Parts: sequence; C-alpha cells; structure tokens
Amino acid sequence: MTTTSRQWVVAARPIGRALSEDDFRLETAPVPPVGEGQVKLRTDWLSFDPAQKSWMENIAGYVDPVEIGGLMPGAGLGEVVESHHPGFAPGDLVTGPIGWREMAVLDGAKLAAVPQGVPPTAALGVLGGTGKTAYLAFVEVGKPKPGDTVVISGAAGATGSIVGQIAKLSGCRVIGIAGGADKCAWLVDELGFDGAIDYKAGKIRGGLKQHCPNGIDVFFDNVGGDILNDAMARLAVGARVVICGGISRYNADPRDPEQMPPGPRNYFNVVFTGATIQGFLLPRYEAQFAVANRRLAEWVRSGALRYREDIQAGFENAPQTLMRLFDGRNFGKQLLRVGSA
Amino acid sequence: MTTTSRQWVVAARPIGRALSEDDFRLETAPVPPVGEGQVKLRTDWLSFDPAQKSWMENIAGYVDPVEIGGLMPGAGLGEVVESHHPGFAPGDLVTGPIGWREMAVLDGAKLAAVPQGVPPTAALGVLGGTGKTAYLAFVEVGKPKPGDTVVISGAAGATGSIVGQIAKLSGCRVIGIAGGADKCAWLVDELGFDGAIDYKAGKIRGGLKQHCPNGIDVFFDNVGGDILNDAMARLAVGARVVICGGISRYNADPRDPEQMPPGPRNYFNVVFTGATIQGFLLPRYEAQFAVANRRLAEWVRSGALRYREDIQAGFENAPQTLMRLFDGRNFGKQLLRVGSA
Repeated sequence: MTTTSRQWVVAARPIGRALSEDDFRLETAPVPPVGEGQVKLRTDWLSFDPAQKSWMENIAGYVDPVEIGGLMPGAGLGEVVESHHPGFAPGDLVTGPIGWREMAVLDGAKLAAVPQGVPPTAALGVLGGTGKTAYLAFVEVGKPKPGDTVVISGAAGATGSIVGQIAKLSGCRVIGIAGGADKCAWLVDELGFDGAIDYKAGKIRGGLKQHCPNGIDVFFDNVGGDILNDAMARLAVGARVVICGGISRYNADPRDPEQMPPGPRNYFNVVFTGATIQGFLLPRYEAQFAVANRRLAEWVRSGALRYREDIQAGFENAPQTLMRLFDGRNFGKQLLRVGSA
Repeated sequence: MTTTSRQWVVAARPIGRALSEDDFRLETAPVPPVGEGQVKLRTDWLSFDPAQKSWMENIAGYVDPVEIGGLMPGAGLGEVVESHHPGFAPGDLVTGPIGWREMAVLDGAKLAAVPQGVPPTAALGVLGGTGKTAYLAFVEVGKPKPGDTVVISGAAGATGSIVGQIAKLSGCRVIGIAGGADKCAWLVDELGFDGAIDYKAGKIRGGLKQHCPNGIDVFFDNVGGDILNDAMARLAVGARVVICGGISRYNADPRDPEQMPPGPRNYFNVVFTGATIQGFLLPRYEAQFAVANRRLAEWVRSGALRYREDIQAGFENAPQTLMRLFDGRNFGKQLLRVGSA
C-alpha cells in the first residue's frame, strides 16, 4: 500500500506583481518510505513569512532554488508518526522545513523538538525564525543603548511586535508604526509600547516629530518606501537603521531597475548624523541561534515576552493565508492549522 | 589711516538650484585693528570644497550660520603681516578659516602653521580638511581589509584621489569612477589605481561588473545618484558603503521632498549582503585629526601620496572657481591664487 499526501507546488514565479492563487497548484504525491536517520511526520501547522514570496521568485539566490512544479517551501510543525532517527519517537512534536504538505519524510537532522513549557505553536513564531530574527537583528545590528528612542515599522507584525518588547527590555523608548487603530491600541495597551503611529491615518512625519523630539536612535524597518524615507528625515546623531524587511517592495521586479520603487530620498542624512544603515539576513547569524533561543524561551516562560497569533484553518487555504501578509490583513504571527489538528 | 580689504559676501542662498555669480557680491570693508591674541594676515590662497554651497544654503545646521550679506566662508592660506599672538610672527605662513577676503584679522587659536618640508598649498588639500576627510572616512567608516576591492566615485577629485592611494597603501584593489579619459588615465598611470571607469562614456554597470568580479567590498561615494545605485547592485557580502559626498544632489532643495532626487533603488541589497551604509562628517572625528595629519604628512614627504592641484588665479574669480566643482571642470584640488602671491 502506498501512502499519499496532498502538497502545494509552485506553479509560477510571482516576479514584479502580487501573489495570486494561480501561482500554486494542489497535487497528490506518494510519501516515500522512511530511510535510516529519517522521520515521517503529519503536519499540524504551517508558518508564513513574507520571505516565502522571494523564495518563489528565486532571484536573490540566498536559499536553495525553488523549481517550478516543486514543493512550496515553508516552516511547519508536525507530529512524528514513524521514526528511524534516535532523537525522535512517535508522538513527538517537531518543527522544521516541512514545506506545504500534509505528510512528509525528512532527515531527523533538519528537525527540532518543540520546547517544553510553552505552547507548541510558539516554536514557529517567537521561538522560531521570527523570534530569532527579531532578537538578533535588533541586538546585533540595532545595537540598542538604554534611553534610546526606537521606532519600528510593521510594528504589529510577528517580527516587529517582538522587537518592540525586546527594546523595552533593553531600556529603550519604543514607538511603533502600524496600520489601524486596533493594532496601535494593542501595541500600547498590551505590549507596553510608549506610542504608536497609525500609518493608515496618514501623518507619519507628524507622528514621528511628536513622538521623537530628540530624533530616532534605532529605526527597525520591515516596510521600506515612504515610511523609511520619513524616518531617515528624523535620525539622531549616530543612529542605526536596521533593514530587516521591505513589505512595500515585494511586488516589484528587482531585475528591472526602472520598475523598482525609489530608495529613500533622505538617505544623505546619514552624512549629517553619522548614521548607519545595515541589512539583516538570519542565516548569517547562525552562530548565535542557541543564545537567542535560550533568551527568547526564558522571556516567553516568564511572561516578559507576549505574542499574538493569526490563525487560519484548512490545508487548501495555504496560498490565501500567505497572501494575507502582503496587504496587512494578518494581525500577529500568521499560522495555518492543517486539517483538524 | 584705515586699511581696507576686498571681500566676497553671500548675496543669495542657492537652494534648489545651481550656484550663480549673482549669489555673491564683491565689497570693500575696513580691516579692524589687531587685538590681543590676534593675527593680521594677507591671503595668498583660497581653498574650495563642495560643502561651501551647503554652508551658503544654511540648511543642514552643522556649521555656524552664514548670513545674507555676511562674509563667504572658506579655508585659506596667508602670510602673517602683524601678530599679537605668541605663536606667530610676521612672514609666517598659516592656514585657517579666513573666508573670501584679501586681508583678515583672526584669533591666532584658529590658525595653524604650514608644515615644513612640503609645498605650502599642500596644507589646504592633502594635509588639510581634504586629506583628513579622505583618511578618516576611508579608515574609520570604510574599514578596509587587505585584498578588499575598493570602488571610489569622484575618484579624480581632491578627496577621491587621496582615498584611492590610501586604499592601495592598505593592500586593496582600487577602481576609480571619474569623468573623462584624461582623468581615468591619470588614476591608473600616475596614482596606481588598478582600473578606472569613465562615467561620461556610460557603461558604469558594465565597468563595475568587469572590474569587480567578486563584488565591491568598500564603495566610497562622493557622487550619489545613478552611480551609487549601480554600485549597490554589486556589493559583496559584508560590504561597507561610505557616504562622503553627493555632488549629483547638491542642486536639489532638501526642504522639498518631491524635488529631491530618488535614493538608491537597490538599497535593499544590504539585506542580502549584510552590508553597511554609513555617512561621514569630518568634525565628528576631531579626536583623530592629529594622527591623520601625521600619517598624511609622512606619506606626502616620502612621495607615497601624490596629489594634483587645479589652480585658478585672481580674487575676483572666486565665485567662478567654486562653480567649477559642480560640473566636474576641476581636475585635482581646486585652489585660487589671490593677487600676485
């Protein structure tokens, strides 16, 4: 008897345009036998991140190429159903690069056990790549000092909301930029941000002026575009600008320079302020993953670090769930519950 | 008897447009008596720098405000004719913030003796603010490592040509971008650059691809605009982009965001490379001036550091001489010989 699994494959590369359901195709594929050192698992949760669109475009070249017709990659959480790896036993919950499929056979070396004492899905967000990105980008590139004024774009997103709380733990004043009154209220009332600016209400420049009378010491950018440019106009002397994401740019075609949106007009302010703009990409900081994971887990267990999940359901909705990230529909870490798990 | 001196004053602020002769007015003013601690000098040379246009605009706020009708500021070299300061005697050659006037009375504390063993005008260029900018911006912000590929825009300019030679002394491969075959030939044949790209012949991107097969480790920018954007497309992992100047932007009005030229579209490449973009402003590095001056003087005396001067003549030509910097007419450090000195 051959076991089969449903899986989503990449049908087209969404270069220079928004994602569409037609970029994905639902297929059924056989599940291979479990080899030595391998584990078979049933997928319970899928995790979503804007970078997945870049992987489909296969331009930047910083991950394994995604082929047309190949499995859509992505992190997930599953339950072990069969194991030929000494580290895992049936019933264990594990995370790893499962991809968009309901059942998978993976090398055990690529999997991590879900930590004890926290809700399992935390392993996909605050204790997964999202949390490590927030911690390492903010600490290693943002170089916070107590008393700094920190401004975060995409502040109610999975990464931004963690960055803001770590900034508070670091003794900083924290201002978030987010879309909508509900997200702004959550940042201030629930997460303890010192202020929030609703970009959908306009007036980003005025809001930055009001909330940052002495300028911005750390600007943590997940958005790009006008928000980045406005922030560049208010940098303090010696400011650090962390380029972590650019959600406003993800539908432009990087192969066509004319089509790309302009960079920040105000970049030249780095001369007057001596400021630094630096990019962050998680894989470069692998040597610090263990430290980041330990600290994040402690903060989650103690309640010092809070997070919000945006939970969708049904494996067939995976493409639509990814698309939520690109128009700000998600509120918190975007997850998909697969099947009835 | 009252001594008088001709002087150029600022007649208008050249904001959002090119400099014009009408922005200056030639006047005659009395020379005040020499007070305690002061020195009277006769100006022999004036030194020119693109930042002088910014001073006239009085926007950035990083120098003393320049008033309409006030003396045009600028560095110069003069001969002491009367001294009430113990450090200077008649006949001494000194440099300092003389401004555009033929005779001046200044506090001795603001003056520096011209060093021995080098041509006096070196004190205005390679041993003045130009040389210190080149050394400190390249070393402190560019952080060169031996084997790095260094690309310099405005490479035949006063700052760029010194940066390139210091980069060679640092064990780097050096590619210059300059306007015209004569400037490019000078960089390679006289200064020892490993290659040069003539931006007037177009093909900057192709030139960078050819000369930097492994990417750019340090990009030292004096220009901005398309050249900066093209360089951002070829950054190596861990690259440092030094923003030292932006000659392509100096005629735009920073108060009008819509009028400013776009920033580098390719800025997001800092994410994929982990690169850093940082600005440089000389006054912030004052603590290192003595070290920089000593090293530059040693290299000039030994012949390791060469420079070229673009010498104009006649005090009445000061405005036209400054304007040469903004269309690339100058070839080397721009100086004006005042009177018959």
